[in-house]
Amino acid sequence: MEALQELASQLGDRLITAPESVAPYAVDSSRARPEGQALALVLAESTADVSAALGWADRHGVRVSVRGAGTGLTGGAMAYDGGLIVSLERMNRVLEVIPEDRLAVVQPGVITAELDSLVREQGLFFPPDPASARICTVGGNIATNAGGLRCVAHGVTSDAVAALEVVLADGRIMRTGARARKNVVGYDLTRLFIGSEGTLGVVTEATVRLKPVPAGTPRTFRASFPTIESAGAAVAEIVNGGFQPEVLELMDALSVEIIESFHQSGLVVPRGAMLVGQTVGERAAEHAERITARCLELGADDTEVSDTDALLEARRLSNPALTARGLKISCDIGVPISRLAEMFTGIERISAEHGLAVSSVAHAGDGNLHSTVESPDTEAGIAAADAVIDDITRLALALGGTISGEHGIGSVKHHELPWQLDAVALDVQRAIKTALDPNGTLTPGRAV
Amino acid sequence: MEALQELASQLGDRLITAPESVAPYAVDSSRARPEGQALALVLAESTADVSAALGWADRHGVRVSVRGAGTGLTGGAMAYDGGLIVSLERMNRVLEVIPEDRLAVVQPGVITAELDSLVREQGLFFPPDPASARICTVGGNIATNAGGLRCVAHGVTSDAVAALEVVLADGRIMRTGARARKNVVGYDLTRLFIGSEGTLGVVTEATVRLKPVPAGTPRTFRASFPTIESAGAAVAEIVNGGFQPEVLELMDALSVEIIESFHQSGLVVPRGAMLVGQTVGERAAEHAERITARCLELGADDTEVSDTDALLEARRLSNPALTARGLKISCDIGVPISRLAEMFTGIERISAEHGLAVSSVAHAGDGNLHSTVESPDTEAGIAAADAVIDDITRLALALGGTISGEHGIGSVKHHELPWQLDAVALDVQRAIKTALDPNGTLTPGRAV
Ligand SMILES: Cc1cc2nc3c(=O)[nH]c(=O)nc-3n(C[C@H](O)[C@H](O)[C@H](O)COP(=O)(O)OP(=O)(O)OC[C@H]3O[C@@H](n4cnc5c(N)ncnc54)[C@H](O)[C@@H]3O)c2cc1C
Ligand SMILES: Cc1cc2nc3c(=O)[nH]c(=O)nc-3n(C[C@H](O)[C@H](O)[C@H](O)COP(=O)(O)OP(=O)(O)OC[C@H]3O[C@@H](n4cnc5c(N)ncnc54)[C@H](O)[C@@H]3O)c2cc1C
Repeated sequence: MEALQELASQLGDRLITAPESVAPYAVDSSRARPEGQALALVLAESTADVSAALGWADRHGVRVSVRGAGTGLTGGAMAYDGGLIVSLERMNRVLEVIPEDRLAVVQPGVITAELDSLVREQGLFFPPDPASARICTVGGNIATNAGGLRCVAHGVTSDAVAALEVVLADGRIMRTGARARKNVVGYDLTRLFIGSEGTLGVVTEATVRLKPVPAGTPRTFRASFPTIESAGAAVAEIVNGGFQPEVLELMDALSVEIIESFHQSGLVVPRGAMLVGQTVGERAAEHAERITARCLELGADDTEVSDTDALLEARRLSNPALTARGLKISCDIGVPISRLAEMFTGIERISAEHGLAVSSVAHAGDGNLHSTVESPDTEAGIAAADAVIDDITRLALALGGTISGEHGIGSVKHHELPWQLDAVALDVQRAIKTALDPNGTLTPGRAV
Repeated sequence: MEALQELASQLGDRLITAPESVAPYAVDSSRARPEGQALALVLAESTADVSAALGWADRHGVRVSVRGAGTGLTGGAMAYDGGLIVSLERMNRVLEVIPEDRLAVVQPGVITAELDSLVREQGLFFPPDPASARICTVGGNIATNAGGLRCVAHGVTSDAVAALEVVLADGRIMRTGARARKNVVGYDLTRLFIGSEGTLGVVTEATVRLKPVPAGTPRTFRASFPTIESAGAAVAEIVNGGFQPEVLELMDALSVEIIESFHQSGLVVPRGAMLVGQTVGERAAEHAERITARCLELGADDTEVSDTDALLEARRLSNPALTARGLKISCDIGVPISRLAEMFTGIERISAEHGLAVSSVAHAGDGNLHSTVESPDTEAGIAAADAVIDDITRLALALGGTISGEHGIGSVKHHELPWQLDAVALDVQRAIKTALDPNGTLTPGRAV
């Protein structure tokens, strides 16, 4: 493409066209596959680079995909045929930490766990904690409004973002938000960009909110239950019981088996499911003991409390273990926690109806569930798995839930949007997209 | 107006045209005055009524103002000349309380404190707590993203809203959000409508998040400081000190005087300023003692801890006391808490430069300040007061702050928007407004 020369003259060697160098940036961690060959890759090193790339693409009608670390699970960062890929991985500096105001200013490509480690030196932590924290970027977390293990105590990524710098589809640069804790000045554009999956603008800088590391040694706990329903029912009791766990996860028997066969972590496969969690603060030990005691009252087979976090490390292996097994057809539904047990009963019924095994892990304290279907990687196998996920997703909606708790819509779940959103809401979403990206060059056809 | 017949036939006696019945709904609690005479008032009793009114107005090019209880401080609910007023005061029912999921479903006209009292019967509370809680509506809180006294611990209104039903400018009805705790499905329209001050749609139902009432008796505390700067400096120490106050307010000497002369509450006027706050939970007493001890170390003249909330009741009288004194020229700035002391020094300087006394109260734990200028209610007096507020507002921005922490923009602060937002952000705000209200009939010319 001739016009590419124009961009090359601005970006120099930050513009890459060699197909073998571009290809690794064309996919994410979902089962989605790019529709063709990308034109070029921009390894942006500054806001100006991003602005140049987006402005150029907008003028030339070239579709742009935006990429943090490519750990996304819904095809959001996938390249377009003949499209431009803008990668933020080189914009990976922490620009400022302001402990008095518990703020940090970061570039979007900083790795989530690296930000967290850095600010821990000052007694603070970065609350968002997706299981992928060691391999994903803060920009990706913002673009997907990522969840993770600590949401039950600290909320989602949007609760940890104060202000953004964003490059719009046409290359214009803008700022949202403020450093003040409260700010109501026009529409909340910060929140609009959070979770917009690269479709409204590219985040080039973020001012994020930190929290003080709680005193004392955290405790992890486990409670194994005879059935997944009884584990699910215990969740609401724990969350509403005043024990304030910082983490409350669920793994069913099959998902524990899958983790153990991937990497022996010493987890004992439960009869039905296990809850694992963490308590923090000065009363961490007391709270962990009270939670496990309550679990025994609620029918747990056995429990344990520990001061290492081996249990949570094992939980973090769930996604890699499934991937290693070649399993990718999964969901990310959410239900109100009072409906969790019902949801699990329903999943068992659906699994039986389809004759396909389903493994489930859940950020249980948030009612957010990932169920994966055991189905061969053939055309028929994929179609069968998809049918199971569809049924599970519709059940979540019937229980007052959502089709996506934290992974977003991307391209993989795009067909599910009208299941949850009414026609007017869909219309409003599209009207906003068109208002901000009239030429439709920035991550078109995804998320909304 | 002839077309009004069409609306009257749909709404019957919920459409009011008698000027003396309409007039009380034409103003809010700010110093803004309506530009003329409203055409009619709709006392909506259902979503269908709101939809009929907005659809009609949109077709006939009639401007609409939206009104909860009219306690707003920025002219957001003010009527338009020849405009229609849509009041939500009759839609004041709590439709459902779901304690297991800590949710309540409410109509927009429910009084904030009444919702709070109702759910307290179930051991829960509604976190948003503006000083006006007994007279404002939940719909108004959502539309302004109201703050209040408990934000330092519980965040702002947007942190307490899970889902909305909204009527758009053209009368179409839509739903946003979900009952699940996490939900990333398309753009976050819930957050977009929150704080949009009636310019994007009318909230006709809200699913709000509740929290469990902490165990134990709350404690209130006071620490009086010799200077307002020393009180301001103590705030960051308290917030970052791990004492977790639920409330942390500041009143300077003049504002205490003004409250006491309005209603004798037994407050002793401090030399410079006083901090008043509340701690909750099982360790409320210990935390209050530790906070006041720390304040003494930081130079407080004297302190007290109590188990009544007389101190907070007195703080809540600040706005009525100022109003009774005829004072309305105030600001609602926010700064990062590390800059509070600097902000106060600056206010003293600005006050001296202009030769006009300024009283300040602050939701100090959030860095959110309301300063009011003592100036006669004459044309010259108002202009002089405005000049002081302008200087204070620009200083807040220079310190990394905001022109509005909780009251919003409305019509009163409209001219300040470009001080904080860059041209691109202003453009994006307007593009969204146009996308959702192309005919510009819903609360036009305000907020953005
Ligand atoms: C092992 C594993 C575990 C996981 N666990 C969790 C979990 O617990 N919770 C959870 O929420 N997710 C989880 N995920 C999903 C994924 O890690 C998150 O969605 C993460 O936020 C993506 O970050 P990324 O940098 O990899 O983004 P990418 O995959 O590169 O991109 C994701 C989306 O964000 C957009 N984007 C990226 N950067 C920007 C930017 N700067 N500006 C605008 N748009 C941008 C992309 O266009 C794309 O739409 C997991 C994934 C894996 C592989
Ligand atoms: C004594 C006093 C103390 C106060 N203290 C605080 C405080 O501590 N913190 C704080 O944040 N504010 C405070 N305020 C300001 C005010 O109470 C809040 O802004 C409140 O949220 C307004 O609620 P309302 O029902 O009175 O709304 P109104 O004044 O009727 O309207 C406010 C805005 O919201 C819009 N609106 C109202 N209802 C709806 C709806 N259902 N759908 C769409 N738009 C709607 C209106 O169009 C208008 O723009 C105080 C005011 C007073 C008088």
